Amino acid sequence: MTENNEKQYVIGLDMGGTNSVFGLVDQRGTVHATSVISTKAYPDVNDYVAAGVQALQPALDLIGGIENVKGMGIGAPNANFYSGMIEHAPNLLWKGLVPIAKLFEDALGIPARVTNDANAAALGEMTYGVARGMKNFIMITLGTGVGSGIVVNGEIVYGSDGFAGELGHAIVDRSETARECGCGRKGCLETYCSATGVARTARMFLERSDEPSALRNLKPEEITSFDVYKAAEAGEKIAKDIFDYTGEILGAACANYALFNAPEAIVFFGGLTKAGHWIMDPIQKAFDENSLFTYKGKCKLLVSTLNGSEAAVLGASALGWE
Amino acid sequence: MTENNEKQYVIGLDMGGTNSVFGLVDQRGTVHATSVISTKAYPDVNDYVAAGVQALQPALDLIGGIENVKGMGIGAPNANFYSGMIEHAPNLLWKGLVPIAKLFEDALGIPARVTNDANAAALGEMTYGVARGMKNFIMITLGTGVGSGIVVNGEIVYGSDGFAGELGHAIVDRSETARECGCGRKGCLETYCSATGVARTARMFLERSDEPSALRNLKPEEITSFDVYKAAEAGEKIAKDIFDYTGEILGAACANYALFNAPEAIVFFGGLTKAGHWIMDPIQKAFDENSLFTYKGKCKLLVSTLNGSEAAVLGASALGWE
Repeated sequence: MTENNEKQYVIGLDMGGTNSVFGLVDQRGTVHATSVISTKAYPDVNDYVAAGVQALQPALDLIGGIENVKGMGIGAPNANFYSGMIEHAPNLLWKGLVPIAKLFEDALGIPARVTNDANAAALGEMTYGVARGMKNFIMITLGTGVGSGIVVNGEIVYGSDGFAGELGHAIVDRSETARECGCGRKGCLETYCSATGVARTARMFLERSDEPSALRNLKPEEITSFDVYKAAEAGEKIAKDIFDYTGEILGAACANYALFNAPEAIVFFGGLTKAGHWIMDPIQKAFDENSLFTYKGKCKLLVSTLNGSEAAVLGASALGWE
Repeated sequence: MTENNEKQYVIGLDMGGTNSVFGLVDQRGTVHATSVISTKAYPDVNDYVAAGVQALQPALDLIGGIENVKGMGIGAPNANFYSGMIEHAPNLLWKGLVPIAKLFEDALGIPARVTNDANAAALGEMTYGVARGMKNFIMITLGTGVGSGIVVNGEIVYGSDGFAGELGHAIVDRSETARECGCGRKGCLETYCSATGVARTARMFLERSDEPSALRNLKPEEITSFDVYKAAEAGEKIAKDIFDYTGEILGAACANYALFNAPEAIVFFGGLTKAGHWIMDPIQKAFDENSLFTYKGKCKLLVSTLNGSEAAVLGASALGWE
């Protein structure tokens, strides 16, 4: 039971194409309980919502029931904050428009809001993480793709249609040899700086040279930024070159992004950041070299300190406080 | 005299390095009177403010005095909205920090606010122009340089330091041959798409070919986008090529900018827009080709309809209503 009348918990839902993680979070950002259901197992979204509510029940019982929960935040692919819907998500079973916020509101009797995972990550950093107290910053998530959440005056930028903040699809290479992107265009940042992008760079560098490398023992399509990190730690020059190449593109792109909202910080999250100084040093170098003089030295480049496995749920839950 | 108690006028000041234009503006965006003083003639900013107040007096007398004025908006180089100061403006006589808003507030007894000219232009479009009613749009001013004003949720983005929104300095060319910019870096958008940039392109195209052109009768450093427009109207292929080259860079850059705030519109202002379809068609083409699919067809490319000579004063005056 709560000690006062203020509702002290929120629910966060991190919905992926494969799994959905539900978490119960308090105001300090402690995740009290999580439960997981398979997103793919429910061709009917109503069954999915019912399964989610059922999975939450034991955790809700622990904290005295739903009456102690202020709201629910959902991080989901192709989610529109304005409409509360998932809209035409290619990686989910539910086609067209899915009023996911309304469905959970009706099932749980509390307000629910929805946004995409990068915006949720930005909210998580602002509420519980390294961006606490910041009014203007940019979140960059480096995963299978590159996502972004932009904060202006303490609020996520959703833009005119709810889908603003797609900096991973900024075209950073307009040359003939620019990489093809899943979006149908060429040269998007995420073709270079996502996990997949780093693997593409690794394959390119391995093909170009004869340098011995532990990376040659892996299937080229399975190389991760963590493998490249291990190779860099082992002293391989080629691994260092891969991170330099990636960081130079990402740092220069971030210098352009900073022109938009003069951020206090750009916060990075995701697998690539585990490479530590191998990736952060070249990002910082390229950022400094490419920053407009009026912004020089004003914007920090930070790495998320939220627990990786909890960060997505925490981020989503932050929407529940709003 | 006003017919009710509501103050029906604002003062707009468009401060340039050479001249300063003061205007008295009503709620419909009609400029009732303007007066001009030389910015350069006053090495002491206190004398400048006194001269400005004196120049305004006849106009103020016409509308029943300063008591009918709600506030003053100032568009000035290197102006910081947060601090109300002009900060280290290289093109003004006054060095360091100049508390210009405070000086006019004390002299006139009304609130005064300050911003840069591109933000003022965005406010002008939002208050009186083609962006009326829009909550998310981007203003691009194509003058000696390229300026920008970004609007999110109906408010100008000032960022963490007051100097956000410098999209003219986004680096759009990272090749060896990228053009040098006045900011000390290379490949900034404004080296291609400002008035100066178009002239550089004209010189480049004229040097590269032997095509006859009326532009060859001009001093290369004096070619303006309007000269190129006249040549295009006269059927010169080289002039069309210059606009195609400029528009392709600008349209592609705008497609990247749209990723930030998913704008309802990008509004262009300045000399280059007078070239009409010669420049707007290639901008639109490159914008469409480079837009991320989620934004396709959602963002209009518009040209300011504010009277060119009044637009800067109108834009500055819009700050006076806030």
